[in-house]
Amino acid sequence: MKKIKAAIVGYGNIGRYALEALQAASDFEIVGVVRRNTSEIPVELADYLVVNEIEKLGMVDVALLCSPTRAIQPLAEKILKLGINTVDSFDVHSDIVALKHALDAVAKAHNSVAICSAGWDPGSDSIIRTLMLAMAPKGVTFTNFGPGMSMGHSVAAKAVTGVKDALSVTIPLGTGVHRRMVYIELAPEADFETVATAIKADSYFASDETHVRQVDSVDALKDVGHGVQMSHKGVSGGTHNQLFEYSMRINNPALTSQFMVSAARASIKQPAGAYTVIEIPPVNFLQGDLATLIAKLV
Amino acid sequence: MKKIKAAIVGYGNIGRYALEALQAASDFEIVGVVRRNTSEIPVELADYLVVNEIEKLGMVDVALLCSPTRAIQPLAEKILKLGINTVDSFDVHSDIVALKHALDAVAKAHNSVAICSAGWDPGSDSIIRTLMLAMAPKGVTFTNFGPGMSMGHSVAAKAVTGVKDALSVTIPLGTGVHRRMVYIELAPEADFETVATAIKADSYFASDETHVRQVDSVDALKDVGHGVQMSHKGVSGGTHNQLFEYSMRINNPALTSQFMVSAARASIKQPAGAYTVIEIPPVNFLQGDLATLIAKLV
Repeated sequence: MKKIKAAIVGYGNIGRYALEALQAASDFEIVGVVRRNTSEIPVELADYLVVNEIEKLGMVDVALLCSPTRAIQPLAEKILKLGINTVDSFDVHSDIVALKHALDAVAKAHNSVAICSAGWDPGSDSIIRTLMLAMAPKGVTFTNFGPGMSMGHSVAAKAVTGVKDALSVTIPLGTGVHRRMVYIELAPEADFETVATAIKADSYFASDETHVRQVDSVDALKDVGHGVQMSHKGVSGGTHNQLFEYSMRINNPALTSQFMVSAARASIKQPAGAYTVIEIPPVNFLQGDLATLIAKLV
Repeated sequence: MKKIKAAIVGYGNIGRYALEALQAASDFEIVGVVRRNTSEIPVELADYLVVNEIEKLGMVDVALLCSPTRAIQPLAEKILKLGINTVDSFDVHSDIVALKHALDAVAKAHNSVAICSAGWDPGSDSIIRTLMLAMAPKGVTFTNFGPGMSMGHSVAAKAVTGVKDALSVTIPLGTGVHRRMVYIELAPEADFETVATAIKADSYFASDETHVRQVDSVDALKDVGHGVQMSHKGVSGGTHNQLFEYSMRINNPALTSQFMVSAARASIKQPAGAYTVIEIPPVNFLQGDLATLIAKLV
């Protein structure tokens, strides 16, 4: 059985968990890691090639793009042009159609495959939302996030003047409404009320109920656990009151990177082009023989 | 926009709900209903062609096979040979791989598509089980059914000598273990203890905790509501204790027939062959433009 040759591009939080997910998947071979800093090598990468350009890794089937969302499009385009598949966890919901459209043209021109937004939301949650509509086409779906740390909101709070460090925790209030609990360390001489007002006025927080709390150590509160609770109440054919619920409590970066690895596996079976996860046959996310998987899961 | 021409084959419980699901789907056109009895036409079929052979309906894109599981394979083969797609809700889990294999050969030879076992379990639940493994490849998944009426167990109980009518309700005890509550009306002169012992010895019941209760009217207890609760606790990459839950409370035949209609839509986009639902891109179950669906759901 030929293994899938994978590269990790970017080695932050997601990249570290992606390494573990690839190590746990016996159908993958880790070709190497691409990162800016190639002089200081973390101990867990000692056995791997660490380079600053993916071209230096030789043959690669698929690259896991573990870089921040804003870096994804140019990075994916560059790698797709080399004929290498890409998987990302791009997470700005409103820009996913445009990203897919841009990567689709590049992938088709260079016989490669891009799977976009393959984390958990967007990602696995998107498949659940799709399935809920397939089961009951009419009705309301609610996605409730948390309790858990929001990476995007924490970064936004930290960027406010007077904030030394920040952690924003998302609290689900039901029916898709969320509270933001923002824990901050103040910079020297910063005024708490001024900072709190600035955070609440930021576009990340302005439309949600937001509470700002000053703490001695933000780091002491950090926990990458997260969760989601989704519900759909709708109509199947002419029958109302069909009720569906999905929930999970997970380590956020571990799930994101695991689902990216599953999507990397699926990318090998797709024709050239760019796809979101709702366009992928679900069984292709899994390792193993099709008939065996059908016998086990269907 | 060209509508999908659908036929309903078999007009029992599932067929009636399939009619409602097709009526609610504006991208479908109901070409007609195929049933043995074409002389007594139920009022809701007054506006439709009711025939005893699908060939009499003219052009059909896809047939919803609403016949009992044991009738599915020969029926599907006959219709696939006419170049018409089929969707079924064949529900004997252990025989699905064989059914798919048989229909695949016929479908490929006649340029048609079969989607097998497209109810809720097997069916939509199968997609959830697949997704849970894609998110946490190691770990245990439990599928708990009910509380709700089991069609298969009710039929099995009714077939026992001395039983006039029977209803078997599935009660979930957790971790995939179920209790069977069997409500029976006795035939004249039948002995309750003898009948109860025979039911408990039947292969449908022998491995589960089964309680048999004599009632005056089985019909007075019938309710087609059903449910499922699935859980998966597993490992994403190297991270343990990832927790996933899915549950639903639904009208059983309404969900089955709605999901069959969603699968019928998806069948139009598949290359010739036979598929289970975990091999279908989920977005293809839905009506609408791909970019709009991605923007809404991903």
